[in-house]
Amino acid sequence: MRAMPLRDGQTIEAPVRDLRRVPIHPDNWYPLAWSREVKSGKTLGVHFAGEPIVLFRTASGQVHALEDRCAHRQVPLHAGVVDGEGIRCGYHGWTYDCSGKCVDVPYLGRERLPNGVRAYPCQEVHGLIFVFPGDATLAESRQLPELPSLTDKAFKTRRFGKPVNCHYSFMHENLMDMNHQFLHRKQMGQMRARSLGRRRGDDWVEVDYVFEREGGKQPTGEALVFGSSKNRSDQGGKSVMTIRTEYPYQRLRIRSDEDTLVMDLWIIYVPLDAQQRTNRTFGLLSVRRPSSVPFMLDLAWPLLVWFTERIFKEDRDIVEMEQAAHDAQGADWNHEVFPVINDLRDVLRNCGDRTVIPIREVSDLA
Amino acid sequence: MRAMPLRDGQTIEAPVRDLRRVPIHPDNWYPLAWSREVKSGKTLGVHFAGEPIVLFRTASGQVHALEDRCAHRQVPLHAGVVDGEGIRCGYHGWTYDCSGKCVDVPYLGRERLPNGVRAYPCQEVHGLIFVFPGDATLAESRQLPELPSLTDKAFKTRRFGKPVNCHYSFMHENLMDMNHQFLHRKQMGQMRARSLGRRRGDDWVEVDYVFEREGGKQPTGEALVFGSSKNRSDQGGKSVMTIRTEYPYQRLRIRSDEDTLVMDLWIIYVPLDAQQRTNRTFGLLSVRRPSSVPFMLDLAWPLLVWFTERIFKEDRDIVEMEQAAHDAQGADWNHEVFPVINDLRDVLRNCGDRTVIPIREVSDLA
Amino acid sequence: MRAMPLRDGQTIEAPVRDLRRVPIHPDNWYPLAWSREVKSGKTLGVHFAGEPIVLFRTASGQVHALEDRCAHRQVPLHAGVVDGEGIRCGYHGWTYDCSGKCVDVPYLGRERLPNGVRAYPCQEVHGLIFVFPGDATLAESRQLPELPSLTDKAFKTRRFGKPVNCHYSFMHENLMDMNHQFLHRKQMGQMRARSLGRRRGDDWVEVDYVFEREGGKQPTGEALVFGSSKNRSDQGGKSVMTIRTEYPYQRLRIRSDEDTLVMDLWIIYVPLDAQQRTNRTFGLLSVRRPSSVPFMLDLAWPLLVWFTERIFKEDRDIVEMEQAAHDAQGADWNHEVFPVINDLRDVLRNCGDRTVIPIREVSDLA
Repeated sequence: MRAMPLRDGQTIEAPVRDLRRVPIHPDNWYPLAWSREVKSGKTLGVHFAGEPIVLFRTASGQVHALEDRCAHRQVPLHAGVVDGEGIRCGYHGWTYDCSGKCVDVPYLGRERLPNGVRAYPCQEVHGLIFVFPGDATLAESRQLPELPSLTDKAFKTRRFGKPVNCHYSFMHENLMDMNHQFLHRKQMGQMRARSLGRRRGDDWVEVDYVFEREGGKQPTGEALVFGSSKNRSDQGGKSVMTIRTEYPYQRLRIRSDEDTLVMDLWIIYVPLDAQQRTNRTFGLLSVRRPSSVPFMLDLAWPLLVWFTERIFKEDRDIVEMEQAAHDAQGADWNHEVFPVINDLRDVLRNCGDRTVIPIREVSDLA
Repeated sequence: MRAMPLRDGQTIEAPVRDLRRVPIHPDNWYPLAWSREVKSGKTLGVHFAGEPIVLFRTASGQVHALEDRCAHRQVPLHAGVVDGEGIRCGYHGWTYDCSGKCVDVPYLGRERLPNGVRAYPCQEVHGLIFVFPGDATLAESRQLPELPSLTDKAFKTRRFGKPVNCHYSFMHENLMDMNHQFLHRKQMGQMRARSLGRRRGDDWVEVDYVFEREGGKQPTGEALVFGSSKNRSDQGGKSVMTIRTEYPYQRLRIRSDEDTLVMDLWIIYVPLDAQQRTNRTFGLLSVRRPSSVPFMLDLAWPLLVWFTERIFKEDRDIVEMEQAAHDAQGADWNHEVFPVINDLRDVLRNCGDRTVIPIREVSDLA
Repeated sequence: MRAMPLRDGQTIEAPVRDLRRVPIHPDNWYPLAWSREVKSGKTLGVHFAGEPIVLFRTASGQVHALEDRCAHRQVPLHAGVVDGEGIRCGYHGWTYDCSGKCVDVPYLGRERLPNGVRAYPCQEVHGLIFVFPGDATLAESRQLPELPSLTDKAFKTRRFGKPVNCHYSFMHENLMDMNHQFLHRKQMGQMRARSLGRRRGDDWVEVDYVFEREGGKQPTGEALVFGSSKNRSDQGGKSVMTIRTEYPYQRLRIRSDEDTLVMDLWIIYVPLDAQQRTNRTFGLLSVRRPSSVPFMLDLAWPLLVWFTERIFKEDRDIVEMEQAAHDAQGADWNHEVFPVINDLRDVLRNCGDRTVIPIREVSDLA
């Protein structure tokens, strides 16, 4: 419940809508696959929030996105075949061009061709295939994320991500609340985050942290990602981590005490199912090569991969527990005491779609 | 929506009921098992549209069908034992005769015996055990299918079938629409079906086809089933395939240019679950032995089995995709352009049961 | 339906509530784990009727029971760590003492600590961890079961139990109706139970049986549990088995013809899920050592274990079939003819919670 002011100065308690039932807003560009997953002349069936979408790469190398169903009998087009610059359904051979128009039914005259299927705006950039699942007329006015570290030779980038069985909001909160270092105590030792302050706008929120080691030794994997703590004095000159949710994307950047960007993570959590209880994470983790021995980072890369996978697994396990608890409780019982997370929740609630995610009901037949 | 005439000559759009939610009509004979599955002195638990039915073969060799539940504590009778000409529940030993009457409760006097369970009319023919799940008073007036090719020595018959996860109507439509040869392009090469015309009655519809090869070579498996195309002229004298749904059964027959029946398939799709989203297919495929070298067919049989299994698997995969799409869409979005399939859908809708299959609902708790 | 008297002497049929939807009453002591399952300094997540509960054993050896959720983000506390005499959540490190009070949030001042979580009364006795899930103010007034055979050196005790997928009432009925010897015909041969009479109170019912062998030889396993039948005359001097449900527990005792207690089984079926369709059985089976050769029982123990496991498996299979039938039928179709079972059903219905177990509904969207 949230206090709501009335005209006469009194307040009533108005229900706040359950964040875990706020659908992600479709009027944004979402990556639905890595470029390498859509091979030349092949199809790939993906989902956005329960909508089946087929991606296919034609002979010209272009990737297109259509509704993943044949207008005839609704079987997925991803079970069909790429044919020139179009796609042919695998059942009765109905064919669609890249705009979704039906251009051939083998046993029907061309003058009687039926309506086709919906096409989605689609762009391939940064090794990702971005689709605009919402109102297509807005696609041009909405920008793709800028990712300068990706093209900067001073950085090496890791692409990662897996499906995680939870609402996207748990992912944003997990990353933004660095007090959860306790979760990673086996990987990171005893680290304590200290918040330096937060800022927010209508569709974004960000927070700065510094870290202090309270016990244990810095693990090698962590030194690679966050930079070695050896060369810093204990009191001053610390790296600052900034975490920003700019709807619907999230970014984590670490700047050294000389204000050099040493780590740049861009990440997005794309809902797969209609209930938005599963998301696919697409992450791009760019790490600056050490200026003295740049190839050191390549040598150490397998260790970095191993370390980030361990961290990611711990995060995945805990957010899936959060989702399971929410499903069992049937409502949001969270009791948040950290201000930036409450800001973040407001941003996610306000920027999300206005509808409500339907959930399965247990009814009493008594 | 379908145009419905009003008294004043106007029409309104009346909703057509969703074919995928039309239950199969129980007032027909349905095979529920192969004869070989019900061994002497043994039971077999089967289902018809969610109704549990126990089949059991008594010492005399007769097969009987009862409700598959003990009147006492509802455990399935198929977990019990055949006892003379009756069946004894495996829990407390309540015993039923083949009419379903309770004839013994070991710890109760004979004068106090409780009511029994329902018996179903049951006939064993053609190696199949047919049960009449509907109004038993109609059983005698409804005929079992006639299958003359089965007893004709000129034919060799293959019995096949597996559970398929879809509504029975998808199966009928799949077989009847021979434009789906594109689906079998890997097995059959490029074949094109041409419809010669269709006929229909109240509870049946049939269509004739001829086929033309558009590319590739005729596979050996196909030659065995459909006859070799070598000995025919390209223009005239082609085999004609007739596919007929005569509710609730389906039949596919191929006649040679001399009007000899060369292939005769009888097939039925029996719903297993209450939601009728799973059916068990029982198929009898009879192929005429070549008159010159009759045993050739025996030699080639394994190839024919392999070929038909491949075709059947492709069909199974695609109809299961259709069902999954219907479940996700929650309604029938199909856009049918082939007239015989629209006729077939009318027959299946009109001959089906008047009730509506209940489906699980996702409700909005907002 | 049950006849209900009206003021004017007439009766109407009032619906009897479905026993399988009667929740077990929480105002009792229920074992939720064996002592050995909760190791020193470790946690164990368990459930009572859908309520997640964490058991943990602190450094002092004491076991405590709290709600299995962190007040912050609802993740289970069993994924956390025991810390002194309290428990620390594994995500952000919130800490609770054994009364459920929140005593530390690492990044928050002590003066601002939020509310904690619920604690349950908890006692460890007989190698079992008992929890009182209901109104805690009643815990002291409700007694733990007395189990004198457990501490009597003349007996040897087996602890057993597994989850069984059915409502607890099926378990009570299974054990109390000894006419189900037919179920165990392969283990026990042809045994016939004869009821000597029944007694009942508000929250208990009990029945006495004697047994007669109708055919076959007494198996060795059975002789161990029930005593050898060799030394008895066929007519008189038989062992008497008494089965008693004293809500919510159940007990089966066998007394020899000299009125010596030779077998003493105490058993309870604890619902795990909110729908109470799964229970975990905790059984303590005490068998008197033969006075002449006491260690004989130890030698024969593996055979006794094997025998009881076989019997238990047959019981588990059949009660799970009962539950499956109830779920499919959606109501209680049982037709009970044995008076003591009808008495038992009354006791379970009257002593159960007043609410109704919600079940999943299949709705008709037509």
